Amino acid sequence: MSIPVIVDCDPGHDDAVALWLAAGHPALDLLAVTTVGGNVPLEHTSRNARIVLSVAGVEGVPVAAGAAGPLARELVTAEWIHGANGLGGPELPEPTIPLDPRPAAELMADTLEASAEPVAIIATGPITNVAVLLRDRPDLAPRIREIVWMGGSTERGNATPYAEFNALVDPEALALVLSSGIRFTMVGLNVTHLALVTPSVRAGLAAAGTRTAAFGDELLDFFCRTNAEVFGMPDGPLHDPVAVAVLADPGCVRLRRTRLDVELAGTETLGATSVDFDGMLGREPNAWVAVDLDVERFWAGVVDAVSRLA
Amino acid sequence: MSIPVIVDCDPGHDDAVALWLAAGHPALDLLAVTTVGGNVPLEHTSRNARIVLSVAGVEGVPVAAGAAGPLARELVTAEWIHGANGLGGPELPEPTIPLDPRPAAELMADTLEASAEPVAIIATGPITNVAVLLRDRPDLAPRIREIVWMGGSTERGNATPYAEFNALVDPEALALVLSSGIRFTMVGLNVTHLALVTPSVRAGLAAAGTRTAAFGDELLDFFCRTNAEVFGMPDGPLHDPVAVAVLADPGCVRLRRTRLDVELAGTETLGATSVDFDGMLGREPNAWVAVDLDVERFWAGVVDAVSRLA
Amino acid sequence: MSIPVIVDCDPGHDDAVALWLAAGHPALDLLAVTTVGGNVPLEHTSRNARIVLSVAGVEGVPVAAGAAGPLARELVTAEWIHGANGLGGPELPEPTIPLDPRPAAELMADTLEASAEPVAIIATGPITNVAVLLRDRPDLAPRIREIVWMGGSTERGNATPYAEFNALVDPEALALVLSSGIRFTMVGLNVTHLALVTPSVRAGLAAAGTRTAAFGDELLDFFCRTNAEVFGMPDGPLHDPVAVAVLADPGCVRLRRTRLDVELAGTETLGATSVDFDGMLGREPNAWVAVDLDVERFWAGVVDAVSRLA
Amino acid sequence: MSIPVIVDCDPGHDDAVALWLAAGHPALDLLAVTTVGGNVPLEHTSRNARIVLSVAGVEGVPVAAGAAGPLARELVTAEWIHGANGLGGPELPEPTIPLDPRPAAELMADTLEASAEPVAIIATGPITNVAVLLRDRPDLAPRIREIVWMGGSTERGNATPYAEFNALVDPEALALVLSSGIRFTMVGLNVTHLALVTPSVRAGLAAAGTRTAAFGDELLDFFCRTNAEVFGMPDGPLHDPVAVAVLADPGCVRLRRTRLDVELAGTETLGATSVDFDGMLGREPNAWVAVDLDVERFWAGVVDAVSRLA
Repeated sequence: MSIPVIVDCDPGHDDAVALWLAAGHPALDLLAVTTVGGNVPLEHTSRNARIVLSVAGVEGVPVAAGAAGPLARELVTAEWIHGANGLGGPELPEPTIPLDPRPAAELMADTLEASAEPVAIIATGPITNVAVLLRDRPDLAPRIREIVWMGGSTERGNATPYAEFNALVDPEALALVLSSGIRFTMVGLNVTHLALVTPSVRAGLAAAGTRTAAFGDELLDFFCRTNAEVFGMPDGPLHDPVAVAVLADPGCVRLRRTRLDVELAGTETLGATSVDFDGMLGREPNAWVAVDLDVERFWAGVVDAVSRLA
Repeated sequence: MSIPVIVDCDPGHDDAVALWLAAGHPALDLLAVTTVGGNVPLEHTSRNARIVLSVAGVEGVPVAAGAAGPLARELVTAEWIHGANGLGGPELPEPTIPLDPRPAAELMADTLEASAEPVAIIATGPITNVAVLLRDRPDLAPRIREIVWMGGSTERGNATPYAEFNALVDPEALALVLSSGIRFTMVGLNVTHLALVTPSVRAGLAAAGTRTAAFGDELLDFFCRTNAEVFGMPDGPLHDPVAVAVLADPGCVRLRRTRLDVELAGTETLGATSVDFDGMLGREPNAWVAVDLDVERFWAGVVDAVSRLA
Repeated sequence: MSIPVIVDCDPGHDDAVALWLAAGHPALDLLAVTTVGGNVPLEHTSRNARIVLSVAGVEGVPVAAGAAGPLARELVTAEWIHGANGLGGPELPEPTIPLDPRPAAELMADTLEASAEPVAIIATGPITNVAVLLRDRPDLAPRIREIVWMGGSTERGNATPYAEFNALVDPEALALVLSSGIRFTMVGLNVTHLALVTPSVRAGLAAAGTRTAAFGDELLDFFCRTNAEVFGMPDGPLHDPVAVAVLADPGCVRLRRTRLDVELAGTETLGATSVDFDGMLGREPNAWVAVDLDVERFWAGVVDAVSRLA
Repeated sequence: MSIPVIVDCDPGHDDAVALWLAAGHPALDLLAVTTVGGNVPLEHTSRNARIVLSVAGVEGVPVAAGAAGPLARELVTAEWIHGANGLGGPELPEPTIPLDPRPAAELMADTLEASAEPVAIIATGPITNVAVLLRDRPDLAPRIREIVWMGGSTERGNATPYAEFNALVDPEALALVLSSGIRFTMVGLNVTHLALVTPSVRAGLAAAGTRTAAFGDELLDFFCRTNAEVFGMPDGPLHDPVAVAVLADPGCVRLRRTRLDVELAGTETLGATSVDFDGMLGREPNAWVAVDLDVERFWAGVVDAVSRLA
């Protein structure tokens, strides 16, 4: 029995691999893909999602565009990591998959209503679309199996000292989703920083030998070169697929039940995800937080999924 | 040459009169009506807007529902003033006007694109729908003639000591709209508190003799009784039509060009509209703020408009 | 039976008149004067307090210097109203009264302990010294009859749109004092703006014919000229004596029991005093707030007090 | 040439060892000790500082009490770690050293003025006293060689998820000290968590054989037992002496020049020390931050210092 999932993303190199993991892994049944402005503006993320699925030969999964920016702030993007179009590296083909005309939240709603069993939502960008869905269609909450989000950190951030990029971009959306009571898992930098794209990871992926693997290798080549230039280290962390792995292969990500709050008012720490492992605040646990990754098993799963695609 | 306008509202007793003023005043051309959750939840405001226009015989103006709640917070409503359905008082007829299937921001966008000249937007509730429009369709800014909003205050508030209800409900939306650079006029409590529903105002309105006037009298009867019970004063302020009057009859509302900011971080003063008449902060003016009302002329205009309707 | 009082001030033109009212009014027994940095830096306020008392022939009242700045912020001053030395206008004589070597909080503590009955504290500047006293000597709370403070506003501010100068300078001190549970009365701009220095007020004061009155007239001449230049209105408000009048002649200031909170986190409204007359927040009342002034009776009291001095 | 130092502390077990390291290390010349309310209330920290110096036979170093609580907040204490009197474990002797009658800031000021060369200040508690000194005597800044503070963290906190105890207790004081421009070094949890009291550390200290070592062993026995009970780990971190080591033996603590800001407004992250190693914020560096510790060398220095005392 595979788990029906919707992936909400802002591709982005790591989103691309996340989409392939979701599409190729036998434990998951990818029902729909939605996009959000984040790493790069919405028009690019919407196009990129379709390209990434086209390359992999994934047909029949609708792709719809959602929020161009966060609920209540100006969008900040990250072209300096992902390139001007968000998928720096390979020559990008025209996508063969059309853009679904529905807004993302409507496609999500339709997908939830059409599914025989509750659907999981995996979000790998600012969590705006999920917040819009929950805000405007609270009646659908029982149709959502759980939400797994790549973002935040239990330690330091990557956009400001204590805030991770996706959390900083739309902290109000995160607060809304957290308040919904739906099972929520945060997969933050503390764990995704273990998913490093080392030379042996790249070699393993390339060995899959598929068209997807070849395209992916071009993406990772760009990704590693940018990491080397910006951070002085080619082995960058591939954040987003780890969120997919939480559902695809639960044994490879260790979770802890804990309290999670997001800072909305701070002038220095806006978007910080405050994770109270030790119960210092005396509040009820409200989330699961990823705390460790079986790195080899994770990459093996990625390679296996990519090898099942075109 | 009448001014084309869209009214975005959350009826509400005073919204009802605002809609009639917009529909009946010869200086305005009402193109569309959109609704937002505010005084009461969205399902009521959407139905109420259609009832109010049906009673007045206003045909051919599309009515679409927008945001059920604010951009980034939980909705707070005000049933204690407006009654459980938002239009306490009269027996409510079934609306003869259908609900347009488009989301409010889409109806606004289509209306802006279809109009030969720029369209003014009058908002009389939490300004969420306008924020969504500007956030998602910034390209349409040149099609917006100006925005006039009933909300805020240059003095004390009515929801907390320094925050007015519409501003408190969605302060982030107000901040987004203010940052757009589109001409913006705030019509706050400092002026709307002059628009009191006195016995002579009620007598004048009833004398219009129309079906709309009769329905309106029932609304105001409830409104005045609630004001007497809650505030110990039957002559309550009818806030929303004053925002319409700014465009319908500019001579009856005095404006000042000034600096306007909204508090997003305060724990005691969230949603306060900080209006710097004296330039104490040294910032550039960014808004017009209503500072006085020609009360008699205002009510004469309302009565005249209502008498032109069914 | 006169009320024993300590006056904590930052002279300042209006502080000067407040000191004379406290020293000359038969209902008050001025035990000590303490100074704080505020209108101008501490070295000026400390010297000015001594000059003002020297001119009036007030002997035997110790004067001690307290906090040079607020508890937790940089000091902002107001030389543009009060002149470089804080008492712009007259030629300032050398004070004949020495500076007490004790820190202000220590003089306050000694005065409280030495008094047979509880002592009232009247503060007419940033309330830092009182906060330091209460923070460091909470055991003395029962020795304090009550605290009356000139500062804050129930309406608009004068330093930012919603913050009054004394409240903005040290909002944390105000919060600490409010949390002490000692009876607290706020005399804010909403009432002190009624205490205008009109020509007839000046004539009445000059007619007292004392040395103090003559010196005061020179102060008010400067004060009114500055008000005319800065605000385009010579009849400026003489804030601080109103706080003294609350104790000297309770019949001339109307108070309301209400909830008072101060904004510590707002980016636009820091220092705003949120006064919940209508109980909108559902919190317990914790303060008295001045809401009206018998203007004629107030000025008569000031003139009478000044005429009793040298 | 030893460095003249003032130690400002709130003993506390780790403060005790910090005082001994400062008193016994040949590279430091301990001129004065001041105390602050923190781990336990001021009356205990003031007494404990004198006991700790008495036991070690340190004569002639004045000890003065400072702030009972933070600049602008209520004091929170940590008896659950340090015991009711702050030095849980040994039978506490009567101190043979008297309490200097001067307030801490005055003793600091006198010490700075009396020293032929600039004096370093080491603070191991909430940094309130240093803030009071700098706020009230900014003229003495050139007499301060530098300030080294144990507090904050570049990673997670120990009082809330992102705030360390000393920073949380008085964040406004930290902000004031940071804004002074005096050379400032933060020694946070990220490094002090390396200074674990392991069995071999305890054995080494006990082997010093002095009275101080014996007393210290009793302290550490309590400390380790409390750590075992509260955190399930007997080898607790001895934070405060690491701040002393920065001056006593610079080679054993690695520092980085970076940007440091403290969160004053956050609702979830108040007191978080935001350290921008990567310059993400584009602000000027304003502090040194400890990033690594030579653990063996550190403990060797502690043992050596303790062995030089009584």
